[in-house]
Amino acid sequence: MTDPKRQFTVTFLPSNKSSKVQPNETLITAARKVGLHINASCGGAGVCGKCAVIVEQGDVEDGNSEKISSEEFLQGRRQACTSIIKEDVTVRIPEESGRQKGGLGTEIPLRHHARMHIFNIDELRQEGIFDPPVEKLCLQLKEPAPHDNRADVGRLIQELGDQLGKHRMVAGLPVMRKIRAALREKDFLTTVTLELPVNNKSKSHILNIQPGKWNHRNFGLAVDIGTTTVYGVLVDLNNGTILAKDSCYNPQMSYGEDVIARIIYAEKPKGLAMMQELVVDAINTLITNMLNNATPPEDKEHGGISRDEINSITIAANTTMTHLLLQLEPDNIRRSPYVPVSTFFPPLRATDLNLNLPEHCTALLYPAISSYVGGDIVAGVMGSGMYRTDQLTLFIDIGTNAEIVIGNKEWLACAACSAGPAFEGGGITHGMRAVEGAISDFSLNPDTLEPMNVTEGNKAPLGICGSGLLIIVATLFEYGVINQSGKFNDINCPHIREGRSGMEYVLAWKDECAADHDIVLNEVDIDNFIRAKAAIFAGVSTLLDQVGLQVGDLQQIILAGGFGSYIDLDSAMTVGLLPEVNPEKIIYVGNGSLMGAWMSELSNHIRKDVVQVVRKMTSFELSEVAAFKDHYVASIFLPHTDSGLFPKTEQRKAQRTIKSTM
Amino acid sequence: MTDPKRQFTVTFLPSNKSSKVQPNETLITAARKVGLHINASCGGAGVCGKCAVIVEQGDVEDGNSEKISSEEFLQGRRQACTSIIKEDVTVRIPEESGRQKGGLGTEIPLRHHARMHIFNIDELRQEGIFDPPVEKLCLQLKEPAPHDNRADVGRLIQELGDQLGKHRMVAGLPVMRKIRAALREKDFLTTVTLELPVNNKSKSHILNIQPGKWNHRNFGLAVDIGTTTVYGVLVDLNNGTILAKDSCYNPQMSYGEDVIARIIYAEKPKGLAMMQELVVDAINTLITNMLNNATPPEDKEHGGISRDEINSITIAANTTMTHLLLQLEPDNIRRSPYVPVSTFFPPLRATDLNLNLPEHCTALLYPAISSYVGGDIVAGVMGSGMYRTDQLTLFIDIGTNAEIVIGNKEWLACAACSAGPAFEGGGITHGMRAVEGAISDFSLNPDTLEPMNVTEGNKAPLGICGSGLLIIVATLFEYGVINQSGKFNDINCPHIREGRSGMEYVLAWKDECAADHDIVLNEVDIDNFIRAKAAIFAGVSTLLDQVGLQVGDLQQIILAGGFGSYIDLDSAMTVGLLPEVNPEKIIYVGNGSLMGAWMSELSNHIRKDVVQVVRKMTSFELSEVAAFKDHYVASIFLPHTDSGLFPKTEQRKAQRTIKSTM
Repeated sequence: MTDPKRQFTVTFLPSNKSSKVQPNETLITAARKVGLHINASCGGAGVCGKCAVIVEQGDVEDGNSEKISSEEFLQGRRQACTSIIKEDVTVRIPEESGRQKGGLGTEIPLRHHARMHIFNIDELRQEGIFDPPVEKLCLQLKEPAPHDNRADVGRLIQELGDQLGKHRMVAGLPVMRKIRAALREKDFLTTVTLELPVNNKSKSHILNIQPGKWNHRNFGLAVDIGTTTVYGVLVDLNNGTILAKDSCYNPQMSYGEDVIARIIYAEKPKGLAMMQELVVDAINTLITNMLNNATPPEDKEHGGISRDEINSITIAANTTMTHLLLQLEPDNIRRSPYVPVSTFFPPLRATDLNLNLPEHCTALLYPAISSYVGGDIVAGVMGSGMYRTDQLTLFIDIGTNAEIVIGNKEWLACAACSAGPAFEGGGITHGMRAVEGAISDFSLNPDTLEPMNVTEGNKAPLGICGSGLLIIVATLFEYGVINQSGKFNDINCPHIREGRSGMEYVLAWKDECAADHDIVLNEVDIDNFIRAKAAIFAGVSTLLDQVGLQVGDLQQIILAGGFGSYIDLDSAMTVGLLPEVNPEKIIYVGNGSLMGAWMSELSNHIRKDVVQVVRKMTSFELSEVAAFKDHYVASIFLPHTDSGLFPKTEQRKAQRTIKSTM
Repeated sequence: MTDPKRQFTVTFLPSNKSSKVQPNETLITAARKVGLHINASCGGAGVCGKCAVIVEQGDVEDGNSEKISSEEFLQGRRQACTSIIKEDVTVRIPEESGRQKGGLGTEIPLRHHARMHIFNIDELRQEGIFDPPVEKLCLQLKEPAPHDNRADVGRLIQELGDQLGKHRMVAGLPVMRKIRAALREKDFLTTVTLELPVNNKSKSHILNIQPGKWNHRNFGLAVDIGTTTVYGVLVDLNNGTILAKDSCYNPQMSYGEDVIARIIYAEKPKGLAMMQELVVDAINTLITNMLNNATPPEDKEHGGISRDEINSITIAANTTMTHLLLQLEPDNIRRSPYVPVSTFFPPLRATDLNLNLPEHCTALLYPAISSYVGGDIVAGVMGSGMYRTDQLTLFIDIGTNAEIVIGNKEWLACAACSAGPAFEGGGITHGMRAVEGAISDFSLNPDTLEPMNVTEGNKAPLGICGSGLLIIVATLFEYGVINQSGKFNDINCPHIREGRSGMEYVLAWKDECAADHDIVLNEVDIDNFIRAKAAIFAGVSTLLDQVGLQVGDLQQIILAGGFGSYIDLDSAMTVGLLPEVNPEKIIYVGNGSLMGAWMSELSNHIRKDVVQVVRKMTSFELSEVAAFKDHYVASIFLPHTDSGLFPKTEQRKAQRTIKSTM
């Protein structure tokens, strides 16, 4: 059996480039990683037969196909896309698979993804802001006596002050109903769960009381409700560690893919209640799964985590998702002037939301800024630490709607713009989500314009996902296949042809792919893509204008959201989606919304700060800013009408040339 | 038809005493009022024939009986107990009905009830503490526009600040769910219901929102849950006026007459839930009745008061009743060391208590001091104004348990003592509640020891109620029929005889009364009464000791509770129930508990003060104070072993003599 931790070295000839790879990677992904083009249309299905290579030292698993004769196989010929690396190998890329003239010229650009920012609880500790809002304390009370017949509640509250210095406590009805038995079951040794106030002047609530010692068990939940996916984590509130994670599709998807469709459904009779029920059911399922799968703290006596031990939940979501969860009528979110019911949400009980959590469990909803800059973005600003940094930062969450925040710990400006669904694979002839079969990476043989398609799951291509689209457009543009307006240049090549929607590039032929048609990218698709990236760039530019800054002033760019992790930074700058900056300045925070929710579970400082942050965040309605339209018009070119903003794109274009005639 | 407001003058001969009376009073109550004794055993049933008088001028209605011949009737002879006064009359009391020797000697003591303190809302206004915790405000919001697309909730909260200077507002989920429609139904003219914080630093809660103008309609409830009776008032929170009142028996009575019996029932399986359900049902019935009978404010548009317009309820009750209402296990209240679950109760929603009130309605429970000094007493201290007075005050609520508070605005000390049920007509051979047929007033013919029984409802006697018992014992003692120990002196009289429980006085013979036996008061009954009054006096004395004061220092005595209004002050001092003070110092506040609840509905100052008052009230557990037993032993005499404490009783005894031999 292969040691899954072992890495193997793959060396490609004739370029002699090598790479360390994980076991079970394919040769084609290894080539892509070191920046070598291999013609490959079928994305790993092993049907196009174009990606043949010769294994010269060592061997790979699989890699055979009907396009390879048994004699060739014995000589080491393999399909790169289906060859699985199980040991160190040396592989030659023959001329017909790579670039036609000589090995050195086969290099293609490496991919630069943003540096991942890994959140570390120790950061919170070092900053002195690890102070979970829920605390459990164990204490031994004095037993009642004739000279000391204080009421149970009064006794508890006084002893919390006298023994532990905890003052200004208040106990609600549920604790009052439990306290008599809870105190007496273990001879007045008891554990209380306190909700500590965000504001020091306020009172602490005694949420729960248990007989005996339970203070080592204190759990909370953080949930991000995305339009598409719901994520949850179960957290140990005593030390911040994550004990379980789970995610699932947002079941509201069946009633509409985007927020507008959900709002329309919610306007129907009983639609709002149904939308709420669906998402609440999903969260309840996540909770059950996490409880079942959680690794509890070392505690032989009590074992697994019970639902009753969850004391707090923080939820972050965009404004529409938040409205649906709270059963607030969202209809004005989609109608000018885009007025949500509320952007601030008071502390709730989890049971108020029909969550299957104990009566004492508190629920916090992240506040939003506006109809289209939601609690998910605020959570991202909190979770990424943007609100505490000195550095001038651009925070950007790219999706159907892109949310943009610019600022630092002193000030924050934000806006949302509608990019359309291109980055999620929507609105493109053969666009699709980033699931199996989606072309997510690509390179071009500069001699033949033959594609190298890398697909999700190494399956036969089915369509193009957002990250693939970005790279394809950038590559076609860099090599001069398309011009600044996204129109095809006059190039004679079998992959370029006149289609129903103008000129198009054929990524995979019908017989090489899993679709029942050729997979193409046409001029209308490219135009949609350009409009999407233009909206985002214009948003960033307008917001920078509004605060009197320029791209060069940005010290940091934070990417959030699912798309952010897949973005090839060079491609993003080539097309003018992101401003051209040093890629080192760009970090990716992953699901910033979930991270913000998690941090609010762990820090009252952050709960307090969020109120200030929201007050500080000046929201710009881009449609109301005249300059936005100008910026947009200037941006609907590759990379921009002002190519001076993108000097490196010009350099890259100069390096990458194709034969002018074929 | 008689003008019900007209008064008539009744003049009695030979004493020539006269009195103004209301129409429909009887001659016997008129005589009692001016202090004239008329022999009367049957309490108005008209059967004993002893109370015959002669109407000399004018005439009365009824007054005939089989004991009066038609000739006598024509001569003006009437039964005083059934003669109804309809005009000015002059009446002669013949020797056989009054005292035997001469008119001047027939005088009997007048009754001195405590001055009634009528609560007046203007007092609150004058003191600057009319500030109801719930306020309704109507305002016209700006309509959303592209340049002003604040969220509905944010818009409302900002405009409350900008237009009305109301800051620090928070809206809960129910308001969020209503606001979208509520704002738009009347073009952004809206009325909000605010719960103003008791503490200025806290936030105001927006409890409710209505479309259009509704700020003139703002209602609240005050409820007193007595062990026996539940009282409610419906209050206009805009001006403090009472719009409806209602009361009913506490239906828990079927499961036990006193708090101990209720606690025992609540300890049974499901007993606690049942106790809660019973009292909640009773309150819900009161609420429905009050809504049906309420006189709404002048408002042709909206008409009667709907349940949804009730924004607040304040409830005062003793500690056990409060525990049962909140479903808190009361069992330790009845077991040494008498530990209640809680004495402080957080603000609740009325629906948390299953009250049939709107979701937004807040509920306030009066805090208690201890197991036996409950929220009803605290409410009394608040409602009577004791906590704001400079005068050194004794507050006393006499029932099965007597609660005693001494102090003024600077300090307060309190205690409870168990008097037993004598004052409520319990534990006495022929004791009964103060309902129809109960002997509630009494005088003695000093010549014949013939009784004058005045009964509730002028019906034939059925038994003796608490106020009657007090007067009977005092009268028997003043005339020397019983001695300082409550034992009968050796007097030869048909009404005094040896009974099953020692000597006894016959108040009414079987054939004169509604019972199937003679109605008597025996030495065991008198002993029970003396023990009851001794417990109370010892409580007062001990509490005075504890704070280093004496009776002479008291500047005011406040009587509260049902019994207080019926107490004849002279009798109460004669027997040593109340300390001997100038009766002018004594006031009666009626249902202090209900009054306190009502005032808390009208004044946030009082809601705030109550927290301080409770902290200030030092509770003494009398059973833990050694001196209490000494005081008790000294008090189990009439009026007291130290007769120097009761100089006027000595004077009264000297004035009232009976023939030593008959």
